[in-house]
Amino acid sequence: MLYVIGLGLGDEKDITLRGLEAVKKCEKVFMEAYTSLLSFGLSDDGIATLENLYGKPITIADREMVEEKADEILSAAGASDVAFLVVGDPFGATTHSDLVVRARELGIGVKVVHNASVMNAIGVCGLQLYRYGETVSIPFFTDVWRPDSFYEKIQKNRELGLHTLCLLDIRVKEPSWESLSRGKKKYEPPRYMTINTAIEQLLEVLQKREGSAYDEDTDCVGFARVGSEDQKIVAGPMKQLLSVDFGSPLHCLVITGQTHPLEEEMLNIYRLNTKDDSDQKVKKSV
Amino acid sequence: MLYVIGLGLGDEKDITLRGLEAVKKCEKVFMEAYTSLLSFGLSDDGIATLENLYGKPITIADREMVEEKADEILSAAGASDVAFLVVGDPFGATTHSDLVVRARELGIGVKVVHNASVMNAIGVCGLQLYRYGETVSIPFFTDVWRPDSFYEKIQKNRELGLHTLCLLDIRVKEPSWESLSRGKKKYEPPRYMTINTAIEQLLEVLQKREGSAYDEDTDCVGFARVGSEDQKIVAGPMKQLLSVDFGSPLHCLVITGQTHPLEEEMLNIYRLNTKDDSDQKVKKSV
Repeated sequence: MLYVIGLGLGDEKDITLRGLEAVKKCEKVFMEAYTSLLSFGLSDDGIATLENLYGKPITIADREMVEEKADEILSAAGASDVAFLVVGDPFGATTHSDLVVRARELGIGVKVVHNASVMNAIGVCGLQLYRYGETVSIPFFTDVWRPDSFYEKIQKNRELGLHTLCLLDIRVKEPSWESLSRGKKKYEPPRYMTINTAIEQLLEVLQKREGSAYDEDTDCVGFARVGSEDQKIVAGPMKQLLSVDFGSPLHCLVITGQTHPLEEEMLNIYRLNTKDDSDQKVKKSV
Repeated sequence: MLYVIGLGLGDEKDITLRGLEAVKKCEKVFMEAYTSLLSFGLSDDGIATLENLYGKPITIADREMVEEKADEILSAAGASDVAFLVVGDPFGATTHSDLVVRARELGIGVKVVHNASVMNAIGVCGLQLYRYGETVSIPFFTDVWRPDSFYEKIQKNRELGLHTLCLLDIRVKEPSWESLSRGKKKYEPPRYMTINTAIEQLLEVLQKREGSAYDEDTDCVGFARVGSEDQKIVAGPMKQLLSVDFGSPLHCLVITGQTHPLEEEMLNIYRLNTKDDSDQKVKKSV
């Protein structure tokens, strides 16, 4: 049996009782490390904390392993109970459908333990989840590659009065150009897009297209480390968030559509220059 | 301090370690019972199970209490640590922004403990969450009230190739007409819309409008009790799901937009008439 277990967004305390019970009975434990290792505070110490809690070792399955070496995970799951741990929810921003489909093809049972993901935790800012349109991804621009199809999606959402969640690029274990040309594995240092960079790119695309889907006065909400103890959430016009220091990754950004009065009241909690300054007042517990 | 704690979707085991730690240290524990009491298996026995786990009594805050008697919750939270428990995530399909805004106005600290909600747990069917458009709500039609503004929203989503989550009506503690006219509180029995009723209404609206936003062959996914041990998920054309018995509430329905190959592979797991019949093969654990 393959248990695909969401760990939630903060730290080791965000696993559910159901998830913990499952991982404790599994013979092998793999953990997906591609998207969210860093956001989960998972330095080596962090992994040791999890291992202590679970009472067994964890094999970190990085991007290569999940994509190329799924066979190892699946053959273990065919022989005994195996846990595959995922930060957030197993079917949140990064889905693990491929692993599930392959398990099913091999006749291996799959059980899912859900948890919070960025896709629902952003609800904490007060913008209602049912009033979001399509989610967009904003990739790092390079000198030669500046894809901007997110622009039309944001435009369509805003025409419909809907909010837009922008997921920001993560580059982990990217093979370096040097390594590609020499056939030797070497990786670029990990990069996580900040809200500031995302807004710079959004404004650049706006200018290039002479568009009006949004502008620098459009109300946005920046989220850093959402769902963790030290999350930072700030609401304000795009141009204001451009200079806010949100700290360490992961970041994401919401571009508002039409807001209702209760949504506005909640956003006001997160605005700068209110009585008690910038930090969010609705905190992640405990 | 007011702790707003998501309980997840299944049963008492779906609380997070963080949530359990918080509720254990709170002096008073309220639980929102409007939307999801039944789905959470919360008969009186269910409440007793939670009370045993938490080691303290729970005050059930029904719809009236949350809306009209929030003062009681807030004044308790002003004096000591109070937990407000919510099935799913505190900011999922049903938000509790009003309580948070009022707490903030009173200078009461608020901490949120996230969990899975229907808004992200539907990801288990393989349709990717970032490819959903606006969520719609389908209300029970009556003889004189048949609001169908959900139709345009579905149409817009499908024009953009996006999936649509349909949240189905819940009627709990609705005052009866008799009670309204006599000034005496009496309630209608609770009603939860089934997937079958939702599809009947969707097809009625389609016919009335002579529309083409979807048709009876449009691929859909029905979810009953998503995230619980006995969840049932079936994918298939609308006309096929019309006659599937999904069992007890809560139900919700997804109308697909354009699907990618990997999404199709996942949906196939949930189709009827495949090798091993109707029940879902990706199970909620444990």
